[in-house]
Amino acid sequence: MTLKFAALAAAAIVAASAIPAAAAGPEVADFKLDNGLELVVIPDHRVPVVTHMVWYKVGSADETPGKSGLAHFLEHLMFKGTAKHPPGEFSQVVAHAGGQENAFTSYDYTGYYQRVPSASLKTVMDFEADRMTGLTLTDALVLPEREVILEEQNQRVGNNPRARLSEQIEAALFLNHPYGKPVIGWRHEMEQLSREDAVAFYKRFYGPNNAIVVIAGDVDPQQALALAKDTYGKVARRTDIPPRVRPQEPPPVAVRSLTMADPRVEMPILQRDYLTPSFRTAKPGVSEALEVLAHILGSGNNSRLYEALVVDQKIAVSTGSHYDSGAVDDSRFTVYGGPREGVSLPQLETAVDGVIAAVAEKGVTDEELQRAKTRLIADAVYTHDSQASMARWYGSSLATGSTVADIESWPDRIHKVTADEVREAARQWLQKQRSVTGNLIKDTGPRS
Amino acid sequence: MTLKFAALAAAAIVAASAIPAAAAGPEVADFKLDNGLELVVIPDHRVPVVTHMVWYKVGSADETPGKSGLAHFLEHLMFKGTAKHPPGEFSQVVAHAGGQENAFTSYDYTGYYQRVPSASLKTVMDFEADRMTGLTLTDALVLPEREVILEEQNQRVGNNPRARLSEQIEAALFLNHPYGKPVIGWRHEMEQLSREDAVAFYKRFYGPNNAIVVIAGDVDPQQALALAKDTYGKVARRTDIPPRVRPQEPPPVAVRSLTMADPRVEMPILQRDYLTPSFRTAKPGVSEALEVLAHILGSGNNSRLYEALVVDQKIAVSTGSHYDSGAVDDSRFTVYGGPREGVSLPQLETAVDGVIAAVAEKGVTDEELQRAKTRLIADAVYTHDSQASMARWYGSSLATGSTVADIESWPDRIHKVTADEVREAARQWLQKQRSVTGNLIKDTGPRS
Repeated sequence: MTLKFAALAAAAIVAASAIPAAAAGPEVADFKLDNGLELVVIPDHRVPVVTHMVWYKVGSADETPGKSGLAHFLEHLMFKGTAKHPPGEFSQVVAHAGGQENAFTSYDYTGYYQRVPSASLKTVMDFEADRMTGLTLTDALVLPEREVILEEQNQRVGNNPRARLSEQIEAALFLNHPYGKPVIGWRHEMEQLSREDAVAFYKRFYGPNNAIVVIAGDVDPQQALALAKDTYGKVARRTDIPPRVRPQEPPPVAVRSLTMADPRVEMPILQRDYLTPSFRTAKPGVSEALEVLAHILGSGNNSRLYEALVVDQKIAVSTGSHYDSGAVDDSRFTVYGGPREGVSLPQLETAVDGVIAAVAEKGVTDEELQRAKTRLIADAVYTHDSQASMARWYGSSLATGSTVADIESWPDRIHKVTADEVREAARQWLQKQRSVTGNLIKDTGPRS
Repeated sequence: MTLKFAALAAAAIVAASAIPAAAAGPEVADFKLDNGLELVVIPDHRVPVVTHMVWYKVGSADETPGKSGLAHFLEHLMFKGTAKHPPGEFSQVVAHAGGQENAFTSYDYTGYYQRVPSASLKTVMDFEADRMTGLTLTDALVLPEREVILEEQNQRVGNNPRARLSEQIEAALFLNHPYGKPVIGWRHEMEQLSREDAVAFYKRFYGPNNAIVVIAGDVDPQQALALAKDTYGKVARRTDIPPRVRPQEPPPVAVRSLTMADPRVEMPILQRDYLTPSFRTAKPGVSEALEVLAHILGSGNNSRLYEALVVDQKIAVSTGSHYDSGAVDDSRFTVYGGPREGVSLPQLETAVDGVIAAVAEKGVTDEELQRAKTRLIADAVYTHDSQASMARWYGSSLATGSTVADIESWPDRIHKVTADEVREAARQWLQKQRSVTGNLIKDTGPRS
């Protein structure tokens, strides 16, 4: 159930929230209960359904060193029942109501959601409030679930060369910050995770004063607030939730690269990640310029990378770039490409370098800039305006240090990005000594 | 005052300890006081002088994430006085007795030593026992010392491109283990270290049950024991010293490299570090084979690397290798070379690869093996038999998980290494995906 939102999906949703504002529709409401819980309500009455999400401001970057995978393990264990409700009951109730549910863990947050008929909202809030501090765990429940997350690691990373490459790149990119650890965990540490570890982590981080509840859909804000007071409002505040102070990165000074060989590789891949500010850590305007830059460089068939590598030079079969603005601490900007047969990864890398250098030196055209901004905002408005996506965008943004006002100003902030700012973003942040370049190649022998 | 012993120096001393044994001289005595303090006495009556060292089993790898440099900072602060003795008094007493003193911090230990006339031994023991738990720190003492360690970082690393390269290599080599953090610390974290941090670290790790006292020189074991009981014996045991369980490395799977450009570089350098077992983590015989391998590969003008790169191919002006066996957790094997003018680092790297591949595939000759073993043991016996070196070897070995018996069996263990074991060590541990290759080049422009 691990899930990391790409910048585009995330960026998309915020603009969707601008529709009602522009159309003078229902406003997003933001409340705080006495016990510290934040409640965000996004009314949407098109269908009699609600999406209900609880976001805990804790993720893999908050794990104690040596306990990697614990945030995600606890996410699984949250389905194991409480004193009031045996394991599986919550899921059954959601299913019987014709609803859907899931959960996800990332570097900075852990989330749980249900999409149910509006009439079932109170029920799911009751269940979520109950497991917020009422989880009961026994070894008989915990230990088999550890096998499940190990198998998940195997499926998601172990058997996926591309995911293994990304894992290695991140480990090399972050010299000091826990973003260098995989969300799913390192296997040798996952194998040692215990019930005690999970309980301690739960007691440390799960509570109303470390949670954001986002409800999107067929509910009125005041009605949602009343329900929240009646359910979450009764959960006692957790004392001593530690501040989110993680070890920060030293200034990046070395150009790094790595090569991973795997016998299952069918197509080699070049992927480069740069250490960049996130929205939260950037100076005003910088994160927005990086979003526009990522779009111009690598989104779609008009992008710089696609035109240069696939169309003009005919050396790549795929290419792209993305930027992850939603992070508590400094984040990543990624470019990648898959070479045509007969093209080496160093050849492809040289060409990628050329595309980036051109933007850093000569900047982008007004036409590119307008197209990118229009497209970013339009994509957001027209293709991602689902309840669930809205709820996700609010939750992930709030859980990584943004405010509702930040979210609502996103289209404006994108709109204000200038060509100079895009060039400057490329010049300043896409410097090679800020990056790790990963090469994924086919393993062709016993010794590499 | 940071100091890390190279494998050779370390290896050397243990053999020196074999002299008295072989000559039926005084035995090394190993005691444990009731409060948990370990006392090792190495009698040596050639001159009326003693070397007295206290080794705390705590180093930079035991620091809380985000507090890098704290172990070393505390080392400095240990000279700031106690309730009984004002700052500077201890050093004055040592100086007035005609003695020397110093201190050092590494990944796994922090040490303090005095070399004084035998008659002053009791005095220095009194002082060390006093500051073992009696340190008093005020902001007025602590904050100026933070400037001192920042300046030390500047001198040792900031202004030393080769040290910066090593720092980057280690950060890239260790994906999960705190050995990836520099002992001196990351500057941005050092700048934030506080009196509270130092006091908490001190109270957590400094105490008789986390210390080893090594006394080498003109003292009898029973006399030293009586003095220790009378001084250290009165210090109360520290409760709750945490076990030394650090996050371990995942299996290394990617061949990594990095390039650091610095305008002050006069000669480029290629340095490669491999993740290898330490004596403590290796299966029996493996660490010894790695010691012999490091000697054959890169020690002196008959070594494989020197003969190939400097003499035959004439592409390098310097080269060498070393292996760090003394570590609580998995450690490093290093090879390096400086190219002749006109030779590129990739050219040099290819040649280094060739030398290593030849050993891994064809092994070493009996003559090389015998020469290496004889030389390792002889170097030890004849050139490193000083009191201080003996004390250091015992202290650093005991502080990283060896026993006195391990130290005494070192020459025998080296003697037993076979040519097959050396080849196998190269084949298994000098695989490229276990390594990071660092390139240090001259910075020739504003953008790299």
